[in-house]
Amino acid sequence: MAAIKYQVIKKDARTKARLGILETPHGVIETPVFMPVGTQATVKAMTPDELKEMGATIILGNTYHLYLRPGHKIIEKAGGLHKFMNWDRAILTDSGGFQVFSLSSLRKITEDGVEFRSHIDGSKHFFTPEKVIEIQNSLGSDIIMSFDECAPYPADYDYVKRSMELTIKWAKRGKKAHKNTDRQALFGIVQGGTYKDLRRECAERLVDMDFPGYAIGGLSVGEPKDLMYEIIDFTTDYLPHDKPRYLMGVGTPEDLIEGVIRGVDMFDCVLPTRIARNGTVFTSRGKLIVRDAPYAEDFSPLDEECDCYTCKNYSRAYLRHLFKAKEILAARLATYHNLYFLIKLMEKIREAIRQDRLLEFKEEFLKKYYGNREE
Amino acid sequence: MAAIKYQVIKKDARTKARLGILETPHGVIETPVFMPVGTQATVKAMTPDELKEMGATIILGNTYHLYLRPGHKIIEKAGGLHKFMNWDRAILTDSGGFQVFSLSSLRKITEDGVEFRSHIDGSKHFFTPEKVIEIQNSLGSDIIMSFDECAPYPADYDYVKRSMELTIKWAKRGKKAHKNTDRQALFGIVQGGTYKDLRRECAERLVDMDFPGYAIGGLSVGEPKDLMYEIIDFTTDYLPHDKPRYLMGVGTPEDLIEGVIRGVDMFDCVLPTRIARNGTVFTSRGKLIVRDAPYAEDFSPLDEECDCYTCKNYSRAYLRHLFKAKEILAARLATYHNLYFLIKLMEKIREAIRQDRLLEFKEEFLKKYYGNREE
Repeated sequence: MAAIKYQVIKKDARTKARLGILETPHGVIETPVFMPVGTQATVKAMTPDELKEMGATIILGNTYHLYLRPGHKIIEKAGGLHKFMNWDRAILTDSGGFQVFSLSSLRKITEDGVEFRSHIDGSKHFFTPEKVIEIQNSLGSDIIMSFDECAPYPADYDYVKRSMELTIKWAKRGKKAHKNTDRQALFGIVQGGTYKDLRRECAERLVDMDFPGYAIGGLSVGEPKDLMYEIIDFTTDYLPHDKPRYLMGVGTPEDLIEGVIRGVDMFDCVLPTRIARNGTVFTSRGKLIVRDAPYAEDFSPLDEECDCYTCKNYSRAYLRHLFKAKEILAARLATYHNLYFLIKLMEKIREAIRQDRLLEFKEEFLKKYYGNREE
Repeated sequence: MAAIKYQVIKKDARTKARLGILETPHGVIETPVFMPVGTQATVKAMTPDELKEMGATIILGNTYHLYLRPGHKIIEKAGGLHKFMNWDRAILTDSGGFQVFSLSSLRKITEDGVEFRSHIDGSKHFFTPEKVIEIQNSLGSDIIMSFDECAPYPADYDYVKRSMELTIKWAKRGKKAHKNTDRQALFGIVQGGTYKDLRRECAERLVDMDFPGYAIGGLSVGEPKDLMYEIIDFTTDYLPHDKPRYLMGVGTPEDLIEGVIRGVDMFDCVLPTRIARNGTVFTSRGKLIVRDAPYAEDFSPLDEECDCYTCKNYSRAYLRHLFKAKEILAARLATYHNLYFLIKLMEKIREAIRQDRLLEFKEEFLKKYYGNREE
């Protein structure tokens, strides 16, 4: 039996947006969905109960980080990542590819794999496509990722082509190495940078291998927004309609809407949690840097239209104080709010698809969100 | 009408321990009670809801810190400290005396008050007994403290005597300045270091002024434990039976039990929250440094006998991982557990008083708690 089952239940009349149901061994996920990032077996500053309370149905774990610390074997002994971190809903783990290329040092890439040094203690490690699957098999996540090379932007055509070829070879090897196909769904990752023919070739060759889902990697790495949207739009045309599509690492409110419109079902991004810890929050009227002085005596909630725990109980003045005083509760309350904001945004997006009014929703949302910018 | 009402409902048959009910404008408190410390308008790493869930009925706020940041006037504008921090149970604020002497620099003590520089930005400030009451009137805490000088240990007799005299004069001035006697109860603070005659004189003269409650200050500042217990025991003999007694800044599990036995009703200490953030937790079998290597693959809870949120859902191995990875959730889960541990300890102490078996409880508790030490 397959680990996951995906079904499109409604297509938007005027865009490529899809409303879907993704069944996993740890619960049913309505798509399009935003997945909070739990890099080191915890969504920073949150408990699993809080994530459930705000409506999260799937979170991300990070293969590179968990392999280095605490080690996937310890997590396996604990009974898997779900049990280790007390999260009984779905988990997706990435391949570690992105982190190997962005965090570690002294990388040596060969066709066999990548040698790298840990960003924690400088120790030497070697990731192969098989190793990365083995780690994820130990973690027991519901959706796992092929090892891939994420090319930087800009990068010349030949580099990206070689990188894409490698990613395809690695996808093949990873698929062969994957043991738990009945309870962990392995996604292929489409690379190819901003070169359409490479994206198309990568997508087609991965689709030939018949994965239960496909990720679009290598975007949001510095390229212009318009180009990113164009590549997303182009790539989803070469992905099967009956499989979920996951856009890796993309996550501003605007990007989520634009991604959905171009046929993406799953998103993750550290943005909401990271900016929260620095004192910046999403509101229906745009981002707000609550740690700034103007909010010292502002006793209104972060967002008048939000009914999250933070907005129901605390003022901007209190949040501002907590940030100035470097209190842990600052990160907690702001993180809760930002994740809630994106999860509710996805709910609204799904409702808009249901009602065939996604484009109207987009216009209304962005008009209010960027209201200040336009004035 | 008086702001608080205190009633002894049961005395222990063989010790000076008292079971009491303390009614405040923000709820009824069963004593003896442990009060979590919320220095900067937040009990570090906790939400008010979590504090309620674990059974906290009163928490501490800090006059010195809140005066400097965000400023008591902002808190007053917010509707008071309760509303500002979303805590609708009781709050006790200390006088700021201890912090002025321990945290700030360039202190100049005169009979009028203390000039000091902020530990945050070096700005110059002047605290008088009247000012300290004014600040606490703005904060709106249920129980407020007189301005006092907390003498260091060791200190010579003449210094401590002068300091005690000053504390009494300041208590008188503070009492006169206090506006909201109907909704904020002002406690006098007994000083006198480790000199019994000074403690006695201070207690008697404060009692003559008739405060609704009395604090014992200037202990747990470096003196030997036995001497501290002796001074507590001595001092409570000079305090009225029908008023609550608060031992400031004292808080190991053993100290709480010994304090109760000597007639103390209220305790506060940063210990449980501070050590939690450093990876040390209380357990029924003593302290445990969960961030240490031996717990890397220990999948049992922090304390097998504890039924707190942390112990019900997470393992030592997971906590250890969170501490190594410097995750905020580490501080959250450990803090929750440590506060829960002390609050439940106080519940057990109250139950033991009810059953006239406090000394037996003490023996059982300490035998298990220090089991390793004795073996």
